[in-house]
Formats: sequence, C-alpha cells, structure tokens
Amino acid sequence: MAEVDLSQALQATFEHEIPITRQIGLEVAAYDGATLVLRAPLVPNVNHKSTAFAGSLNAVATLAGWGLVWLLLRERGLRGTIVIHESSSQYRLPVRDDFQAICSMPDARQVETFIAALRRRGKARLALSANILDGDRVAVAFSGSYVAFLDR
Amino acid sequence: MAEVDLSQALQATFEHEIPITRQIGLEVAAYDGATLVLRAPLVPNVNHKSTAFAGSLNAVATLAGWGLVWLLLRERGLRGTIVIHESSSQYRLPVRDDFQAICSMPDARQVETFIAALRRRGKARLALSANILDGDRVAVAFSGSYVAFLDR
Repeated sequence: MAEVDLSQALQATFEHEIPITRQIGLEVAAYDGATLVLRAPLVPNVNHKSTAFAGSLNAVATLAGWGLVWLLLRERGLRGTIVIHESSSQYRLPVRDDFQAICSMPDARQVETFIAALRRRGKARLALSANILDGDRVAVAFSGSYVAFLDR
Repeated sequence: MAEVDLSQALQATFEHEIPITRQIGLEVAAYDGATLVLRAPLVPNVNHKSTAFAGSLNAVATLAGWGLVWLLLRERGLRGTIVIHESSSQYRLPVRDDFQAICSMPDARQVETFIAALRRRGKARLALSANILDGDRVAVAFSGSYVAFLDR
C-alpha cells in the first residue's frame, strides 16, 4: 500500500477499534514511511488552565507509538495485535493550541531485530519515543514500550 | 466540608474543567479522607481487544492523583492550580470490565512537608501512586509527580 493509503487505513482503524479517538478528534496527519504525525484539536481536550489535558496528550502520544508499530507490521505484510507494556511522559510545557504527536521509526537495526524476533517467536518488543511540540520546543516527551503478537 | 460534599465538588470540577471526563464517563466513586477512588465504564473506553484503552486507563489514573491533591488543598483551606509534571504507567494486565483507579494519601510526613512548602514558597511537588485493579491484582501501576501553585 502507498503511504497515503496506509494513513487512511490507520485512521479507520483508530476510529473503529478505539472509539474514544473520535471524541479526542484524533487525525492521522502525515506518514512518510519514517515518521507518523497524529493531530488533535485543543477544544475537546482542554483542561482547567485552557491548555491540553495531560490525559489527552498522553493518549495521543500512546497512539502515535501504537500507530507506528501498526504501520510497520502492515508494510511487512504481517498481521498481529499490538499492546503497550509501559510508558512514561514528561509534561514540560503547557500545550495551548491544537497539537501533534510525532513518532519516528527507530534506527534500521532496531527495526530489523524487532521484525526478526516477531517472525521467529511470534512476539517482540519495540521501544519508541514520541514528542508533542509547542512550536519547535518539546512540550511533552513520551516513551513507550510496545509488544506485538503475530496472528497465528 | 464533609467528605461526601468534597467528592461532589470534585466531580463537578472534573466535569466543568476537564470536559473529556464526561466522554470517559468518569465518576468520583469514593473518598474517605485517605483514599480517592475514581470509576469509569469500559464501553466508552474500549479498544481493539475489547479491553480498556491504555490512554483512558492512564487518563483516569492521572486524574486520581490530580483529584487527591485537589482534595488535600481543599481540606487545608488552600486554593491553587495543580499540574502534572511527569508520570509513568505499567500496563500489567488487560482490563476487561468497568474499572477503578485508587489513589491514597502518602504518609503524614510527606503530606506535611508538601503543605509547608506550598505555604512557604507558593509552589510544591508531591509524588503519588495510583493503581487500577483487576479483581485484587494490580492491572495498571501508575506513578505521577504533581506540582501545586497557590493562588496569590
């Protein structure tokens, strides 16, 4: 599939399989084969300080990592289930506007180790980072460890 | 205020100030002066595996800690703003039903250190843990660092 079709398939997957993404207003904004960008509007995710609620920021960052693993499996023709095992978030700056979570593929060696382990054992783990930016500064730094299980 | 009135005031604060808590279905289930219990239904927070979406679990745990700090300030007659600075979540077991996040006050010495620092400097930090249980097993272990700022 072309990257634009993959983006649309990921958008449909979010809406269908994780329905609260509709309330969050989550959109797959871009995917170029290396970096996934998810977008969400401020209004439905606003908090008491008129900035984005930490829970929404974490959710969008969590989905950016999940989405990247989903795309990686699709590109390799693999079908499986992806879960998050653990994560951490640093909320460094308030987010005062619509926001984006950006998650990039780790280096090629890590990706190949992950795919090889997944093919061999039916299960593999991948650590990913995602950032939410305020202009060009990192407002939220997220890291997550994801586990994929191949369908048998 | 009695604890039941505080619970109602916290519920109203969540609904008014963090509107996505309504989509999550968040409810203040109990507060006894030492432990806060928040509850959410599975249905609006479900994911592709028919279990609770990690982003919703993290959001409810984040709010349990936030709510506990809010209650602590109210009980001391203090008004301020509370933000989360960083957090981590371990997703140990899938959550297959409606769920609760449970957050307890830290020991009295930590609470008094926090309140004294808040009164003295107008700003103080408190580390809290919250658990989401599956029966009596911890399904999600959350820890968060919160910062309170006194209104001036």
